[in-house]
Amino acid sequence: MLNLENMHASDVRQLIRNEEITGPTAGMAKGYTQANLVILKKEHAYDFLLFCQRNPKSCPLLDVTDIGSYQPKRLAADANILTDIPKYRIYKNGEYVEEVTDITAYWEKDMVGFLIGCSFTFETPLLENGIPVRHIEENCNVPMYKTNMMCDEAGVFSGPTVVSMRPMSPRDAIRATQITSRFPDVHGAPLHIGNPSLIGINDITKPDFGDSVTIKKGEVPVFWACGVTPQAVIMESKPSIMISHAPGCMFISDMQDKTLSVI
Amino acid sequence: MLNLENMHASDVRQLIRNEEITGPTAGMAKGYTQANLVILKKEHAYDFLLFCQRNPKSCPLLDVTDIGSYQPKRLAADANILTDIPKYRIYKNGEYVEEVTDITAYWEKDMVGFLIGCSFTFETPLLENGIPVRHIEENCNVPMYKTNMMCDEAGVFSGPTVVSMRPMSPRDAIRATQITSRFPDVHGAPLHIGNPSLIGINDITKPDFGDSVTIKKGEVPVFWACGVTPQAVIMESKPSIMISHAPGCMFISDMQDKTLSVI
Repeated sequence: MLNLENMHASDVRQLIRNEEITGPTAGMAKGYTQANLVILKKEHAYDFLLFCQRNPKSCPLLDVTDIGSYQPKRLAADANILTDIPKYRIYKNGEYVEEVTDITAYWEKDMVGFLIGCSFTFETPLLENGIPVRHIEENCNVPMYKTNMMCDEAGVFSGPTVVSMRPMSPRDAIRATQITSRFPDVHGAPLHIGNPSLIGINDITKPDFGDSVTIKKGEVPVFWACGVTPQAVIMESKPSIMISHAPGCMFISDMQDKTLSVI
Repeated sequence: MLNLENMHASDVRQLIRNEEITGPTAGMAKGYTQANLVILKKEHAYDFLLFCQRNPKSCPLLDVTDIGSYQPKRLAADANILTDIPKYRIYKNGEYVEEVTDITAYWEKDMVGFLIGCSFTFETPLLENGIPVRHIEENCNVPMYKTNMMCDEAGVFSGPTVVSMRPMSPRDAIRATQITSRFPDVHGAPLHIGNPSLIGINDITKPDFGDSVTIKKGEVPVFWACGVTPQAVIMESKPSIMISHAPGCMFISDMQDKTLSVI
């Protein structure tokens, strides 16, 4: 039995490349930064790069490949984004086509890979500070909601900010604000604490993505900008092709989470 | 006599637009964020945007205009980058052409304006924390140096990181590290403290840009990534046209410096 939690990121990527791992990556290569993947053709790359620049809390770009290159040089020089993610999803004209474990056949010379930070990076320090993370306790997906907070648009891309929600005590919400403020490159401080209706969420028990979690008596919902935002926004513009990781099946980089803390 | 220091940013911009102010903006509209300007044609905009994404410490992008738009919507919705900077410099094919106070005649429909954070934002809290800033004391320009730290290249853009230097006591260097760490979007923490030769600076008394300042006995030189980096890098690639602010003649935005602090 392999100890995936304590393995080096590059060793886990090798297992993924060999298709010995084809599912979610949560908890693997502890301490190494995991990232969302979005692949677009060059014709949409400028607008998308600008969209990320204008909406850094929901779209924290960690790396962008050169046009036509499948190497995420800054995150892992020897990695290959065509093979090193357990499962991909292919979308054409905004419609889901299929899930695959290797996208070599889909790769075109004018494609660009965008690697976007994910909340795994700040959930580890939350847990280490004794703050319970409900969807981990309940072994399900984090609940995510479309809000009434519109992203700053860029070219063809526009849409609402999607947030993830973690319920916790008010005391923990304050500590969680401090902790996540240290990670401005991975969603940063919460966008909202307390009243879901103020950000356009009418029923907290019905997330738009992910699963509903228990909110205990005395807890407040705490909302962070979510990396699902860019995917949702891209889908709206129906590009001829978009490739992403399958939910939970992330890219595991050689960068360590702790290096992303600004203080 | 106008009190420019305590004036609102938009009122100072109006004076600039009317050409009643045509010189350096240091100390004007205290508390409002000032920014460097770079204007490029669309053909270089993607590479430059990517260069900034890959080198955020030296190229902290605060705003990017839509293609063909002279409105920096996020920094000041009613501003116009063609008229609201006291003095501009025009460069063609990497050669300086002239200084002007209005660039309306140079504006083309495929141009993009990039507004880049500047060290004024973190010098104010340094001063407020009792840390002397030598080039302000000596009423000259901050000394800047080319280093051996190469930027991550992007398309046609590559070159060394340029740093600015402020000498201070070791105790102040520690406090300055804490203070500037709170401003990751405006150069952030220092890149180096102490030994200039380790970053390729052979003679600290001979800066590549700006003026030499006194380093007192017991002081250490503290180096921050500098917004001159992108200008120097662009000049190397000799684009057909590049427009920037003249040194010290910055864009004064409606954003307040304090809102850029992550903690």
